[in-house]
Amino acid sequence: MRIVVLAGGIGGARFLRGLQQASPDADITVIGNTGDDIHLFGLKVCPDLDTVMYTLGGGINEEQGWGRTDETFHLKEELAAYGVGPEWFGLGDRDFATHIVRTQMLGAGYPLSAVTEALCDRWKPGVRLIPMSDDRVETHVAVTLPDSGERKVIHFQEYWVRLRASLAAEAVVPVGAEQAKPAPGVLEAIAEADVILFPPSNPVVSIGTILAVPGIREAIADAGVPVVGLSPIVGDAPVRGMADKVLAAVGVESTAAAVAEHYGSGLLDGWLVDTVDASAVARVESAGIRCRAVPLMMSDLDAAARMAREALTLAEEVRGA
Amino acid sequence: MRIVVLAGGIGGARFLRGLQQASPDADITVIGNTGDDIHLFGLKVCPDLDTVMYTLGGGINEEQGWGRTDETFHLKEELAAYGVGPEWFGLGDRDFATHIVRTQMLGAGYPLSAVTEALCDRWKPGVRLIPMSDDRVETHVAVTLPDSGERKVIHFQEYWVRLRASLAAEAVVPVGAEQAKPAPGVLEAIAEADVILFPPSNPVVSIGTILAVPGIREAIADAGVPVVGLSPIVGDAPVRGMADKVLAAVGVESTAAAVAEHYGSGLLDGWLVDTVDASAVARVESAGIRCRAVPLMMSDLDAAARMAREALTLAEEVRGA
Repeated sequence: MRIVVLAGGIGGARFLRGLQQASPDADITVIGNTGDDIHLFGLKVCPDLDTVMYTLGGGINEEQGWGRTDETFHLKEELAAYGVGPEWFGLGDRDFATHIVRTQMLGAGYPLSAVTEALCDRWKPGVRLIPMSDDRVETHVAVTLPDSGERKVIHFQEYWVRLRASLAAEAVVPVGAEQAKPAPGVLEAIAEADVILFPPSNPVVSIGTILAVPGIREAIADAGVPVVGLSPIVGDAPVRGMADKVLAAVGVESTAAAVAEHYGSGLLDGWLVDTVDASAVARVESAGIRCRAVPLMMSDLDAAARMAREALTLAEEVRGA
Repeated sequence: MRIVVLAGGIGGARFLRGLQQASPDADITVIGNTGDDIHLFGLKVCPDLDTVMYTLGGGINEEQGWGRTDETFHLKEELAAYGVGPEWFGLGDRDFATHIVRTQMLGAGYPLSAVTEALCDRWKPGVRLIPMSDDRVETHVAVTLPDSGERKVIHFQEYWVRLRASLAAEAVVPVGAEQAKPAPGVLEAIAEADVILFPPSNPVVSIGTILAVPGIREAIADAGVPVVGLSPIVGDAPVRGMADKVLAAVGVESTAAAVAEHYGSGLLDGWLVDTVDASAVARVESAGIRCRAVPLMMSDLDAAARMAREALTLAEEVRGA
């Protein structure tokens, strides 16, 4: 079975690990979000791609969900001693190696997809990981500064990591997405997929950004195979992260049903909500999307595997319908 | 008193620390060798400048004489895990920060001299450290590979660090030196100096490279102030490093007297040899260079300070002559 998964960072990566356990023989292609990429200290940092790679490759810091295990932060300390920032982005000594190799390869002319493949040669994540695009896309967020009242457009990471989404996101713009082309292999993987899954990743700044690359949304809608998603909202609140803040920016309420409607029946065939949101099932189904209420808390690998099994089961229901 | 010192790495740095103790009120300008600079992992590494900066700024690893104190090597381990080399050049996690800041500033258009000044803002070495040139100069060494008999030109660091000078150096070429211009401030510092010192640094690949930048040798010869050097060769062997290997490449025997003659009386007014080389004094003086035999082993800071005092005393003798 060929499965295509659109993935952001932590939620996507943990779901993928569950999917690998649930379907060990599946041929899994991950289309990774690169909208949260950022240039720091002259280096190209791809947090979502790396979170998927480290998580599936056994190098992730399990507690925090991002960054490397057995990590030290001496380089960052020294950068701060030089007065070179930003200090709010936590790059560890081991993690820096990934960004140095990536930046050097990009500088030598390799596209990001080839670089990602080379990095995965080491990590052997057990999936094919493709960035959504080889072109530069960086999500920016419009905010109003509380002190000055000044409206400012800042990098998503500054909004997410430095400000911890403490200000209202007035707009979320994946800068460069309109001009971006899907990376080699993205449209082919979608066209050849048996199932397409949206893990409980952020619907705006993770999956939404991938869908903003012209051609990807259309390819998924036209693939003619079940497209099933899992709600990142449980009981009207994001399971982790601050998805509600960016949902507000696109005028979507922070509920499991509203997110399904935001994707829409033109894209989505099936939707899993948590059991606490069982009352949302009828609303989602009335929007033309088959819906089931199942436990959606990824408390451990087995829970993630059960969620993946439910998603695949719903996909088969959709296919048989 | 304004002192200009031409410096390589470890020997130059330790001598400078002695000079600071010997002459705490002196205004010291260091013209640093950049011929051993190397690009590694997409980063610009300047080993000699950094050794001077770390040594005088209190950040040096005292035992090895280069690199940072309290250092870890996690980033390098990870680069090796990615199969990205070279592995023979020991960059630590803390040290990497210097190269990242430097590379980022160079990429933003700042010349190396401005970057070095910015790095020194943190380290406060107590001297003005200027690279010999803002232009790229990289020393290369011609060798014959023992297995294949192939003649190959390799980077100085590969010769020095990877091969540990185990092959004969058939030629030593400071690539780019002929086209290089002295960095801003170099010629001015020489013109305004009261004394010019050559520490016991490598006469070929450290001081020789600095002198290979057009204009610097002439400025020193024309400065009209005492120019005093200290022999890096004691008892026919280099005090540290493998200076004999590169002296052979330029046809100079590895003795204290021969090195003085190599600089020549057109450049050098005074020369200190070690007491074990007292018999060389007559030969050096017959070459028109005032010479004294004094202890030249920099076993500790006080020994280095005594050497610096001897050099300044000889300079005053020259001036009074």
